[in-house]
Amino acid sequence: MPTSEIEHLITLLAKLPGLGPRSARRAVLHLIKKRVQLLEPLADAMARTADAVKVCGTCGNLDTRDPCVICADLSRDAATICVVEDVADLWALERTHAFKGRYHVLGGTLSALDGVGPEDLNILALVGRAKDGAVREVIMATNATVAGQTTAHYIAERLNDAGVDVTYLAHGVPVGGELDYLDDGTLTAALKARRTL
Amino acid sequence: MPTSEIEHLITLLAKLPGLGPRSARRAVLHLIKKRVQLLEPLADAMARTADAVKVCGTCGNLDTRDPCVICADLSRDAATICVVEDVADLWALERTHAFKGRYHVLGGTLSALDGVGPEDLNILALVGRAKDGAVREVIMATNATVAGQTTAHYIAERLNDAGVDVTYLAHGVPVGGELDYLDDGTLTAALKARRTL
Repeated sequence: MPTSEIEHLITLLAKLPGLGPRSARRAVLHLIKKRVQLLEPLADAMARTADAVKVCGTCGNLDTRDPCVICADLSRDAATICVVEDVADLWALERTHAFKGRYHVLGGTLSALDGVGPEDLNILALVGRAKDGAVREVIMATNATVAGQTTAHYIAERLNDAGVDVTYLAHGVPVGGELDYLDDGTLTAALKARRTL
Repeated sequence: MPTSEIEHLITLLAKLPGLGPRSARRAVLHLIKKRVQLLEPLADAMARTADAVKVCGTCGNLDTRDPCVICADLSRDAATICVVEDVADLWALERTHAFKGRYHVLGGTLSALDGVGPEDLNILALVGRAKDGAVREVIMATNATVAGQTTAHYIAERLNDAGVDVTYLAHGVPVGGELDYLDDGTLTAALKARRTL
C-alpha cells in the first residue's frame, strides 16, 4: 500500500486527462525514481506556472503577461482575428507559422445540453473587438464538429452589423489523406469546393 | 505558441510514462484551467513527495519512514519474505490483502542486454535477510516473463544454502479468464498443475 503522500499524489495525477489510476501509479513510481531529474523540476514548474500564468484580457490566450505576447506583438496584423475554441487550437495554428494575425479564444462551444450559452463564452469581447474599426476579417477556426460549426454560425450572425468579413476554414481532403479512408462528409465537401490548379 | 513556463511544464510532463507531447499539452491546459483544484495541490504534493519519500533500507519499499510501515509492523509474519521486481508489484500484492508477510523489492530484473547484473539489484541484502535465522520461506513473485523467471531462478540458487524454502507463484488460468483467449504456455502450465477440488 503506498503511503498517504504517494497515495495523494496518485489520486491527483489520475485526474489528468489521459491518465487513470493505473497509469498514475506508474507515473508516480517513475517520478520518485527520477526525483532530481524529474519530480523536483516538475513540482517547481507547476508552482511557477500556477503563479505566473494568466488569461489575456484581450484575446483569452494563456500567458505570463496581459496582454499576451501575441496581442502585444505590433508586427502581427491587427486587422485579422482568428476565432478558436480553445488555447490548444491557438497553439496548433501557431505551430503552422501560417497565420500572422491576432486570435480570440472562446473557451468552448455553445451547448444546450451542457448549459453553455453565449454569455458563458468569450463572445461579447469578440464583438467589441470586431467593432473597434481596426478589424477587417474574422476567421472562424472552430472545430469541424456540430458544436463548433453551430457556434461559428451563431457568432457570424452576431457580427452581422460589425462591418467585417467573416470567413471559415476550408473543408477538404487532409494533406496526405487517402480518399478510401475518408468519411463521406469530407469527400462531399472536397468535391463541392473543387478548384482549378 | 505556449510561453516558456508552460512549454517547460509540457516538456517535463511528456517524459512521464504513458504521456507524449500531445497528451502533455492537453494535461497542462487542463491543469491551468483547474489551477486551485488541481495545479496548486499537485505542485504541493510533488514537492512534499520529493522531500519525504525514501527507500526502506531493509526491503527497498518506498515510504516516508525507514524502516517502512510494512517492515516496522510487528504483526506481519517475519518468517515469510515475498520477492518482487518493483514497488508497483508490492502495491499490487498489498491490494489483494492476501499476504501478511514481509517484502523484498529487487528494483528490476537481471538483463545481460541492458547490462543489469546481480550487483545492480537488491539481491545481497535479500541473501542476508534470508540467512538471519528468522526467515523460513522466500516467495518468488517476479513477473512471469523470461527476465523475471531467470532472475527468480538465479536468486533461488543464491539461497541454496540459506536453509529457507523457496516457492514460486502458481501459473494457471486467470480467474475469469476464457480458455479460448489464453496463450498456449499458460494453458499448458494450468494443465500440468491440475488438481482435485
